Amino acid sequence: MRTIWPAGGAVEIIDQTRLPFELSIRRLETPEKVAEAIAAMRVRGAPLIGAAAAYGLALAARCDPSRPALEKAAALLFATRPTAVNLGWALERMMAALLSAREEERALLGFRLAGEIAEEDVAINRAIGAHGLALFEKAFAEKGRPVEILTHCNAGWLATVDWGTALAPVYRAFDVGIKVHVWVGETRPRNQGASLTAWELARHGVPFTLLVDSAAGPLMREGRVDFAIVGTDRTTAEGEVANKIGTYMMALAARDSGVPFYVALPSPSIDWALAKGASIPIECRDAREVTHIEGWSEDGRRLRLRLSPEESPAFNPAFDVTPARLVTALITERGLCAASREGLAGLFPEHAASAREEAAGTF
Amino acid sequence: MRTIWPAGGAVEIIDQTRLPFELSIRRLETPEKVAEAIAAMRVRGAPLIGAAAAYGLALAARCDPSRPALEKAAALLFATRPTAVNLGWALERMMAALLSAREEERALLGFRLAGEIAEEDVAINRAIGAHGLALFEKAFAEKGRPVEILTHCNAGWLATVDWGTALAPVYRAFDVGIKVHVWVGETRPRNQGASLTAWELARHGVPFTLLVDSAAGPLMREGRVDFAIVGTDRTTAEGEVANKIGTYMMALAARDSGVPFYVALPSPSIDWALAKGASIPIECRDAREVTHIEGWSEDGRRLRLRLSPEESPAFNPAFDVTPARLVTALITERGLCAASREGLAGLFPEHAASAREEAAGTF
Repeated sequence: MRTIWPAGGAVEIIDQTRLPFELSIRRLETPEKVAEAIAAMRVRGAPLIGAAAAYGLALAARCDPSRPALEKAAALLFATRPTAVNLGWALERMMAALLSAREEERALLGFRLAGEIAEEDVAINRAIGAHGLALFEKAFAEKGRPVEILTHCNAGWLATVDWGTALAPVYRAFDVGIKVHVWVGETRPRNQGASLTAWELARHGVPFTLLVDSAAGPLMREGRVDFAIVGTDRTTAEGEVANKIGTYMMALAARDSGVPFYVALPSPSIDWALAKGASIPIECRDAREVTHIEGWSEDGRRLRLRLSPEESPAFNPAFDVTPARLVTALITERGLCAASREGLAGLFPEHAASAREEAAGTF
Repeated sequence: MRTIWPAGGAVEIIDQTRLPFELSIRRLETPEKVAEAIAAMRVRGAPLIGAAAAYGLALAARCDPSRPALEKAAALLFATRPTAVNLGWALERMMAALLSAREEERALLGFRLAGEIAEEDVAINRAIGAHGLALFEKAFAEKGRPVEILTHCNAGWLATVDWGTALAPVYRAFDVGIKVHVWVGETRPRNQGASLTAWELARHGVPFTLLVDSAAGPLMREGRVDFAIVGTDRTTAEGEVANKIGTYMMALAARDSGVPFYVALPSPSIDWALAKGASIPIECRDAREVTHIEGWSEDGRRLRLRLSPEESPAFNPAFDVTPARLVTALITERGLCAASREGLAGLFPEHAASAREEAAGTF
């Protein structure tokens, strides 16, 4: 099962706001519906946001393949969420190809290109899985007990088209018989760890234990974690990592306890045009995500409860930036590298020139 | 208003599990009811747990002042929660006094002693407030804008008999016209920040903003916090600080951003018999505090919702230990000191000898 697929001229997705209680498929026929699905986090995770946006433009080209209509759809899709760089990456790639084709070709071309982006994502994540697997294999051989892995938010197959980023090596390891156990940070305020990662792992049969985000530090300090591994929504050319709020404090705690901290990184999540993490736009979301909480009653109803006094103000940044100094290595589809300009340029020399130009312009 | 008071031979408390939605007074007539109130966190916060336990023994002495009955009640009260050292401290003090009195005097003596412990707590917290106030006064004078304070969990008047520990200086500052703004970590899993601290501050008129615990790090990294200040459930003779889960990661983040990190510390929270934080017993609570959440529906019903797949295992330590190296200073009723054996011994020389003996035994 994948997170998104074309179906009879429309697109279907797993509606992730219904998990872990209901595996609900939602049909999207228009770019507006795709934009709504991204903004409402029915689809989320940087790689999946990219693929969904690509399908959104394919749907636009099917309705009206004219340049103004495509530009309008691209702008609508781009405005949904600011932090994941994959969104702009996928839209730019789609627009360049669509606009260079004749109007009557665009509808079919759009679906073909979106399908290619989705398949590329699957291949990239398989490769990340293979590179990460080597780390776990070595640890399992050395320790002779289950490998203890800590993760945050959801960077599993639900965050991508398939396999996931941070969880790709976990699934690969589990499938080849390496014993693993995953510590899952619940990931306030939207609890993607408690809902999505727990659901994925349980479904796959991978042993896991939930914890509040604050418990990750003491857990590592007690020596109970071998690897911390997360995904990213945007990583700069210098290896500064924007990811779900909580990642920075987890990385600090990993460093304090000597736990290696890895970021699983498909190359479309690299922003070659940015050097410093402080330049990454960080989405701030509704205060009610903090002051209220959604969950499921015993009788299966989705309800929202209030946690704080009425009209309590709340600060709700959805992401934070982990400085490169706290990252042990980036795991990309081309292998591991240091979280630095040199590290990334070594693996992706075709981008190094553009990154350097930008750096020259920036400083 | 206080958190606990004697009333007609019984004790009354604010039932903190009903806040912020209802200010509910609960009457406790027996040590068993006091034990239930502590275990269910109707009263919580190390200083208040101490005072409540003292009243619990007073109630026991009223029912049956014999040594076996008192010892049974003390054991019952002691078993409620393991981490706050104030619990054992208050029980030991009560028992020593009660057992050295004649049986027929114990009922009245118990209430008098429990009242003394409660009044001492109020005086201690007033003094902590005065010492902390000096920090905020200086910062306000230097910066000419509201002093930005970050706190975690609830270390306000609800956690004590009155005033609070970490929040005592905040209230003092606010009351004398120093502009302050408090960033309140929600404090998963039981959300004492979102429910209790927010309620206290709103009631007092102190401006505040809620945030998820994970957002404290990025907030400090952006330079938006002048002081981080928390309470403690038990601090060792070497200044290692057990406090609500999340404190350690907040302290790490404060250090990474150069934000001073203070612990407000009534001396009954010092465990002179322990040196190392690793020796502090850390309470692990029910997994359902992580996998489920309680809150209030729009129509004012308290409901519990599930957040994760059924039967998800969860790890739920209620406290963590912040190493002394991350603590800028301890704020005690006798003033500020370094979080070290020397710092604490300098302020409390009468305890230094016992601490040294223990250290000699430990190492």
